[in-house]
Amino acid sequence: MKQVLIVRTDIKMGKGKIAAQCAHASISAYEKTPFAKKNLWKISGQKKIVLKADSEKELRDIEKTAQMKNIKTALIRDAGHTQVEPNTVTALGIGPDEDGKIDEIVRKLKLL
Amino acid sequence: MKQVLIVRTDIKMGKGKIAAQCAHASISAYEKTPFAKKNLWKISGQKKIVLKADSEKELRDIEKTAQMKNIKTALIRDAGHTQVEPNTVTALGIGPDEDGKIDEIVRKLKLL
Repeated sequence: MKQVLIVRTDIKMGKGKIAAQCAHASISAYEKTPFAKKNLWKISGQKKIVLKADSEKELRDIEKTAQMKNIKTALIRDAGHTQVEPNTVTALGIGPDEDGKIDEIVRKLKLL
Repeated sequence: MKQVLIVRTDIKMGKGKIAAQCAHASISAYEKTPFAKKNLWKISGQKKIVLKADSEKELRDIEKTAQMKNIKTALIRDAGHTQVEPNTVTALGIGPDEDGKIDEIVRKLKLL
């Protein structure tokens, strides 16, 4: 089991901002995930992988693919008080779900 | 309501690693928080602040102070497969809880 957090690298965010967006994506996708999967993931150590994407379109395409495979997702928009424009899509949380199912979707993305 | 995530800056972690540790701290502290506070926090937009600390001791001192004030905390240790030594304390999650209560504890820390 793992959870994947994908961050846009085509918008400028400091490392604290990135961490906050990832935490937001993590909790939001986690909350949508069924209890049994949540539990399996916690027992196995809450594995999380942080990846990068080049554009909002890339995040949205991955979101669609995940949804078609019935994997829970959370697309994060930032209120934009500080580093980015209001309502900017910043990150996408996926799962937790089975490693194989998630790998299929994010295979082409690189580690942040 | 807000949640604070505090990251050690005296150990070397890349921004993806930092984001993963913060997501870990965020979910773990959130899970310990009573339902009513969780809900208030979510309704008000899941505010999260990422701060930095200079040492494990600083994290542990803050953890103790938070616990004395009955604020939920989660100290994160990393398995250490990659960037840090196994079992290294990397981050601390605090809350969510009331802004004022949390501000008292972390007032002297700077944004990451």
